[in-house]
Amino acid sequence: MAETLTIWTLDWVPPGPRGFVRDLRLRWAAEEAGLAYVVRTIAFEDRETNHLDRQPFGQVPFLTDGDVALFESGAGLLHLAGKSETLMPRDTAGGAETLQWTIAALNSIEMVSVPWWFLKVTGQAENGLASWMDKRLAQLEVVLSKRDWLAAGRFTVADLIMADVLRVSDVRARGERPATEAYVARVTARPAFRKAHADQIAHFAAADSERSKRG
Amino acid sequence: MAETLTIWTLDWVPPGPRGFVRDLRLRWAAEEAGLAYVVRTIAFEDRETNHLDRQPFGQVPFLTDGDVALFESGAGLLHLAGKSETLMPRDTAGGAETLQWTIAALNSIEMVSVPWWFLKVTGQAENGLASWMDKRLAQLEVVLSKRDWLAAGRFTVADLIMADVLRVSDVRARGERPATEAYVARVTARPAFRKAHADQIAHFAAADSERSKRG
Repeated sequence: MAETLTIWTLDWVPPGPRGFVRDLRLRWAAEEAGLAYVVRTIAFEDRETNHLDRQPFGQVPFLTDGDVALFESGAGLLHLAGKSETLMPRDTAGGAETLQWTIAALNSIEMVSVPWWFLKVTGQAENGLASWMDKRLAQLEVVLSKRDWLAAGRFTVADLIMADVLRVSDVRARGERPATEAYVARVTARPAFRKAHADQIAHFAAADSERSKRG
Repeated sequence: MAETLTIWTLDWVPPGPRGFVRDLRLRWAAEEAGLAYVVRTIAFEDRETNHLDRQPFGQVPFLTDGDVALFESGAGLLHLAGKSETLMPRDTAGGAETLQWTIAALNSIEMVSVPWWFLKVTGQAENGLASWMDKRLAQLEVVLSKRDWLAAGRFTVADLIMADVLRVSDVRARGERPATEAYVARVTARPAFRKAHADQIAHFAAADSERSKRG
């Protein structure tokens, strides 16, 4: 019997990041693809050093799948996409377009939005990355005003990752971008997102109870 | 006859970015893989808007390969890796490890190093991203102190992209990291890098002559 697909995350996080910890991306992809999986955890305490043998940057999630072990949520998504036509079309052109937009989410949008957000939450609300980010978001608004899905005329893993990058409230609040807002609403209305999101919230809430018992 | 693999870049850039325009990544990968390719160009003038039908963020490079058209250098690299065992091992675990480190270069290292560099060159030498970048670079130094190549015990496309991210002089100057420095030297000593680099330099230098003739 093949080893079960396992998504590794933290055993607990404070309320702030709940619903945004990136194991959500892998849960969501597995739900879309109908792949069975289990969730296992590493300790929140000493999280930056307690699993460096598995993740050299001390982050979650990581994924194990038989003899495959992967960190980087984007890599995990592409690995799962290789197992499911729901996530990535099997024709060469459609697969390439999906790959292109998956990388665009990671390396053209998130590469600006996450550092911008990091500076913002560390006290620089209007920082030197704001105009660059606003430009990228405006360029993406043009794309999304012309189509419902990024690649291949249908939902793919590219929409999963792009919507996950865009749904961050600070990013959504960054100006009026109606096509992008409709896109985020459309992608996150999918049952697989709702289940993955609810499951992550429940996972961390259950850990609250455990921690209060330990007192 | 299949359409030739075509790498699209700008027809000219000022001296500063020469040797760093990202068509280099695709030239390098094609050279490693022994794939025949041609280079075609779009005009530097109005470059942010003159090819939005091909690249919605107004950037280069993009790649065409028969009926496949791809922007995002990372996506182009993974597309080429699918055509060449030199770039990515064919066994599942080795392929996954290569994918993981390719995404790590794009979404864990470059996601910090490029915004940090952008703030630096726009006047904020010590900006709010410096400590985050230094931490990531230190974590990577630990990895590189234990192995010569990131994935599968040999050169892969993950090394190509990681070395390209790390070879930026401002990043190299960011503290003493001997294993990283040796790694960058090792990867960029490859004949395929040297050829791709020299070809890009020559490409833009030739355009200087054309421009001076046009007066």
